[in-house]
Amino acid sequence: MLFQGKDYRAVWIENSKVFMIDQNKLPFIFEIKCCNTSHETCMAIVDMTTRGAGSIGAAAAFAMAQASYEANENRISQLIAAKIKIEATRPTARNLFYAVEKVYAAANISHQHAVDMARYIADECANQGKQIGVHGNTLIGSNARILTHCNAGWLALVDFGSALAPIYEAQKSGKNPEVFVDETRPRSQGARLTAWELLHQGINHQIIPDNASAHYMSKKMIDICIVGADRIAQNGDTANKIGTLEKAVAAAYYGIPFYIAAPSSTYDSTCIDGEAIAIENRNEDEVLYQTGPDDYGNITRVRVANQGSRALNPAFDVTPHHLISGFITEDGIFTAAELKKQYSGL
Amino acid sequence: MLFQGKDYRAVWIENSKVFMIDQNKLPFIFEIKCCNTSHETCMAIVDMTTRGAGSIGAAAAFAMAQASYEANENRISQLIAAKIKIEATRPTARNLFYAVEKVYAAANISHQHAVDMARYIADECANQGKQIGVHGNTLIGSNARILTHCNAGWLALVDFGSALAPIYEAQKSGKNPEVFVDETRPRSQGARLTAWELLHQGINHQIIPDNASAHYMSKKMIDICIVGADRIAQNGDTANKIGTLEKAVAAAYYGIPFYIAAPSSTYDSTCIDGEAIAIENRNEDEVLYQTGPDDYGNITRVRVANQGSRALNPAFDVTPHHLISGFITEDGIFTAAELKKQYSGL
Repeated sequence: MLFQGKDYRAVWIENSKVFMIDQNKLPFIFEIKCCNTSHETCMAIVDMTTRGAGSIGAAAAFAMAQASYEANENRISQLIAAKIKIEATRPTARNLFYAVEKVYAAANISHQHAVDMARYIADECANQGKQIGVHGNTLIGSNARILTHCNAGWLALVDFGSALAPIYEAQKSGKNPEVFVDETRPRSQGARLTAWELLHQGINHQIIPDNASAHYMSKKMIDICIVGADRIAQNGDTANKIGTLEKAVAAAYYGIPFYIAAPSSTYDSTCIDGEAIAIENRNEDEVLYQTGPDDYGNITRVRVANQGSRALNPAFDVTPHHLISGFITEDGIFTAAELKKQYSGL
Repeated sequence: MLFQGKDYRAVWIENSKVFMIDQNKLPFIFEIKCCNTSHETCMAIVDMTTRGAGSIGAAAAFAMAQASYEANENRISQLIAAKIKIEATRPTARNLFYAVEKVYAAANISHQHAVDMARYIADECANQGKQIGVHGNTLIGSNARILTHCNAGWLALVDFGSALAPIYEAQKSGKNPEVFVDETRPRSQGARLTAWELLHQGINHQIIPDNASAHYMSKKMIDICIVGADRIAQNGDTANKIGTLEKAVAAAYYGIPFYIAAPSSTYDSTCIDGEAIAIENRNEDEVLYQTGPDDYGNITRVRVANQGSRALNPAFDVTPHHLISGFITEDGIFTAAELKKQYSGL
């Protein structure tokens, strides 16, 4: 997508170096991080320099390609070790496993195959985002008011986005969408990343505290909810950023359509249902502290909770499929049953 | 309640001065603010130096008593002007109107009547908290896991608390309650004030992002929800801190009992239903910035949202009565219909 007149992707590879927009520094600082080694790329996934299912998948693919470049005499065992290490970076993201598996297989043929496959995965992801936008746009009316949670924009999906792609497409079609952006504590990807994306694309938006979603639904100020996904189980149960479940329950209560937008690579036919999805628990400091620029512009960490109290920090929750109106993928819009038929062959 | 070995109330009057625990500085700094005039007390209500329905009511009562002290030749018109000014400080709090009305009537008899009435209102509030604790405790089982939202503790109700009073009573009964504390963005009264209260009373608790409540409900880790109220309409529809509605919808979905704990003064028989409750919209900066101590202990404000984006900041929402399992008041536990019978005479 265009940022300050230049076309960017969220993550890309040049020779053996992986580059990514530093999403920990956004929206306050726009900076490109260079990862020289597979290890550095892994660390950048762990510390969420890049994040979002698609971008994690592409970064993991590139990390596997870097590992292929780095492997020497014990190529096979080194590739296996790298695969295990990359897969451990973010255990909930389906795309990561999909991507690593494909590049690993290619690396067993040749290094060039690995690099080509990694690039193909990133391109595929971007193209899927574009198609998700085209399909999802059909759900959006003129002047629609859309609730989204977390960031499932182009930063999260290499390019275009998943949940935000239909909004970008609606904007292009002259529909003048208005977006209610959940802050998305504790890491505030909504207030920071989604708001940043929407501002730079000139789309009307307002940040709301996560607590306010049901309130605006009750006031009939939300027409449709569109969020992304980190993993979709065979039956349509969907793991996504913590809070997604709460929004889905509220949307069902108020009769507001609730859509998951995700590339088909997010669908995991080997995972029977939501119960089988591992939920990552992250460090409590993400809840207890907040970081941002102070009044002089210096990035500062402040304590936002009582000293001596502890916090829980589950990164994801699972929304049961019956709370989901439909799934927007690169191939169209599906119910949970149709999704299963389309992608699992069952 | 005891803090560092000394018995405190959240707000009190000495001669013509009103004192209050500065809840904007908690939990990082424990400081008593002295308001020398009715105007200063009003400002302390507006800027939330004191907050919570009961403490606001007591502070407003004291402000009205101060106004009575300050009134001179045009006593009647000055009292009317003060009443209007105090009532404008926090438009959603029912207790405020109740308290100001009573002290205003007393001030029309004599200044001493006004002071006595204001003290009576604060004492009554504290006693109500104590009784709410006794009644609410009957709902709490051994090792119960309780979700609460915002702060409805002793800081919010002069003493003892509303939603937290049953938990304090359960602790005294040896039930070993465990509390899931919603952070309660944007002002984080859960992470700051409730966590501070619970820590100092030695009660097991964990702060969770507001987004995580439904997740823990889905995992069967919450046995009961107890929250406070700012205003209860005739039919039981309840205005409380933004996010309460979302928790109530989720609790109903998962079949978890959801209780409102509030003194009867919160019940407004003149308000037909939730539609009639005015919702206060607060400054967007409460969402866009966060304040707390930096790593060196200096209280610092940091931007936590994209620069250039705007935010919405509704302070309250309205939970419809059919999502509420019961109301815990100083007189017992009631359904919405029973509450109406008990307090409106209808």
